[in-house]
Amino acid sequence: MKPYQGYSQQQLQERKNQLLSQYESYKSQGLKLDMSRGKPCTEQLELSHGLFEDMHDFISIDGTDVRNYGALDGIKEAKAYFAEIFNLSPEEIFIGGNSSLNLMYDLVAKAFIHGLNGFEKPWGKLEKVKFLCPCPGYDRHFAITELFGVEMIVIPMDENGPDMDKVEALVAEDDAIKGMWCVPKYSNPSGITYSDSVVRRLAAMKTKAPDFTIIWDNAYAIHHLYETPDTLLDMLEECRKAGNPNRVYMFSSTSKVTFPGAGISFMATSKENMAHIKKQITIQTIGFDKINMLQHVRFLKDAAHTEEHMKKHADIIRPKFEAVDEILSKNLGGKDIAAWNKPNGGYFISLDVLEGCAKRSVTLAKEAGVTLTSAGATYPYGKDPNDSNIRIAPTYPPVEELRKAIEILSICVEIAALEKILAA
Amino acid sequence: MKPYQGYSQQQLQERKNQLLSQYESYKSQGLKLDMSRGKPCTEQLELSHGLFEDMHDFISIDGTDVRNYGALDGIKEAKAYFAEIFNLSPEEIFIGGNSSLNLMYDLVAKAFIHGLNGFEKPWGKLEKVKFLCPCPGYDRHFAITELFGVEMIVIPMDENGPDMDKVEALVAEDDAIKGMWCVPKYSNPSGITYSDSVVRRLAAMKTKAPDFTIIWDNAYAIHHLYETPDTLLDMLEECRKAGNPNRVYMFSSTSKVTFPGAGISFMATSKENMAHIKKQITIQTIGFDKINMLQHVRFLKDAAHTEEHMKKHADIIRPKFEAVDEILSKNLGGKDIAAWNKPNGGYFISLDVLEGCAKRSVTLAKEAGVTLTSAGATYPYGKDPNDSNIRIAPTYPPVEELRKAIEILSICVEIAALEKILAA
Repeated sequence: MKPYQGYSQQQLQERKNQLLSQYESYKSQGLKLDMSRGKPCTEQLELSHGLFEDMHDFISIDGTDVRNYGALDGIKEAKAYFAEIFNLSPEEIFIGGNSSLNLMYDLVAKAFIHGLNGFEKPWGKLEKVKFLCPCPGYDRHFAITELFGVEMIVIPMDENGPDMDKVEALVAEDDAIKGMWCVPKYSNPSGITYSDSVVRRLAAMKTKAPDFTIIWDNAYAIHHLYETPDTLLDMLEECRKAGNPNRVYMFSSTSKVTFPGAGISFMATSKENMAHIKKQITIQTIGFDKINMLQHVRFLKDAAHTEEHMKKHADIIRPKFEAVDEILSKNLGGKDIAAWNKPNGGYFISLDVLEGCAKRSVTLAKEAGVTLTSAGATYPYGKDPNDSNIRIAPTYPPVEELRKAIEILSICVEIAALEKILAA
Repeated sequence: MKPYQGYSQQQLQERKNQLLSQYESYKSQGLKLDMSRGKPCTEQLELSHGLFEDMHDFISIDGTDVRNYGALDGIKEAKAYFAEIFNLSPEEIFIGGNSSLNLMYDLVAKAFIHGLNGFEKPWGKLEKVKFLCPCPGYDRHFAITELFGVEMIVIPMDENGPDMDKVEALVAEDDAIKGMWCVPKYSNPSGITYSDSVVRRLAAMKTKAPDFTIIWDNAYAIHHLYETPDTLLDMLEECRKAGNPNRVYMFSSTSKVTFPGAGISFMATSKENMAHIKKQITIQTIGFDKINMLQHVRFLKDAAHTEEHMKKHADIIRPKFEAVDEILSKNLGGKDIAAWNKPNGGYFISLDVLEGCAKRSVTLAKEAGVTLTSAGATYPYGKDPNDSNIRIAPTYPPVEELRKAIEILSICVEIAALEKILAA
């Protein structure tokens, strides 16, 4: 498809002038609109104030006083809570603090310094460690592996997840490929959920590296926008079935269920992996905040109650996702200069603009007061090889601000496209 | 001094038989008394329930919504709070989660993987890393350096702190000596506070390793038992004065101010060190629980208010420390088979028994239902070269249980001593 099919040079120039005039008019308003991070809005935060209602009884179901030391891997009811939602056994779960990212960082750090279960040697003792990075992906994942000097290999994504032909070919051949980042459900930012076939192939594929490790960041497992949510196969179960029970470490948290700054998180993996890593964690820490764990379980109760709670979140943010789609369709539809997804859940919309136009679009938006995630951030080292992906995080701004920001963004995307086309 | 001066062999045997009969009588009671860890008791935990009284306003002094993402290094008022108590500037402070131990582990891990400010290379790239370990010391410190393969060198302690002649001689000569663990105030377990001269010498001494790093675990800074507390020089200030501003990282927490499982912690170091390490932390985590930070500062308010709060803790635990001293004096005094300290603060009493008798005493106590910290735990690798140090943690048990446990412990210490003397 050719952009602006049927337009003459003059028409394109006129369109550009018209957009520039709209752009200048927005710019003169001195706006400050932030869509850079996947942050819940204030209305969402207020859904969880019930968390603080019962702060009188601090004894866990097994008699542990949650105020005091003890229970390294978390309180019994917190493990039972996540076990129900994620189909796990309590022995597979370690409850963390307010940051599942920190648990992932710690996993990578432990893999490098001391090695995980089944490692011949720690990754830090190897000449070269490579990771597969489905893209567009999560910038904070890539920042961790970059910090550890990992060579990151971009894996393209389609509507079923990562390109599995490519993944299988790479891991079969290269034993320096030690791991892979995955956001398997409502992926950050493309919103896709890995198909059953992709999950099974990831679980079963032959890897040259015996210590190949998948970091399964199931951050948006229950973050649906609609009544008919995506479904994701149980990766721990699939790995067990495929005879690779120790391949995967799963992570999730309540950051976007209760509070982004003050939720609880967990790591889940095979019992064997868990027993091994707990020996390291017991030296690292006294364990995480058990008062917060108890508050969370008392408030969220169980899977069914949590599902109801998540519907309240969806009711607040669904109109925002729909506003983005509506405005992008109105402004950019039919011109073949942009494509974007309409996710069933998660926190992002992934916008692909003309090759070479993402950075320019984001810069134009920034200058008009609209802050987006840096162009390139969804790729390792911050370098999008096509310079075409832009991550939109629609949840935080009030809907009227969001509408304005997306109006401006679409103008910027179109100006950048026209600049490119007219210069060609 | 000779133990049991003036006793005949027969008298010693009779004494032993008498003690064994008391011991068997206690043993038959099937007791379960735990003095293994420095845990606050339930009455102490209840002092901090005011923390939960105001859970309605979540906006920090600078407008940050503490429920949401942001403020990697902690909220402004938490930094101001610790800055006042510890004579720091806010730029020198990073606020952590519920475990200062975890912050210390992270510091060591970062030193090994990526290096800290001013390091020529990460310690993980070196053939050999050694740490100085003043002993008796904190078992969890030693466990961290053991995990990282550090060679730990025992430094004897006297009433002024570590033996500085030995410390200075070692660090001047050996550039593999990269660090030192210190609990400078109401030391765990000996209760001593480093003298001004010791602090100044630690700050000023010439070290062959340019990246020599002191981990200053100021855990008990405000944990006084009496009205005339020990005083400790400001180590960051002394390091600055001595021209070694980047030598020290200080840690503390509210674990024994509010809740051991759910307090807040901090790390403090020079602005230059802090700027360097924050670049790594920003990749590791989204930051720590800011709701808990805000609750803490609203409850503890400031230095003066916290001092009053700490007096309430002291009123609860002082009688326990005094009961230990009273019973040990009554049972073991004048026999020259044991020595112990009477600390002005902190959480421990350090009991030295006859050489070769600590393990036996702890085993005897265990068999009679009294759990103590393992003998040897106060030394690197769990090996007390003299097998003579026992750590007593008197705060957790109710005073009547504690009295019984110390009665039993003194019987065990005396039996072990008599076994040794009679076998000689």
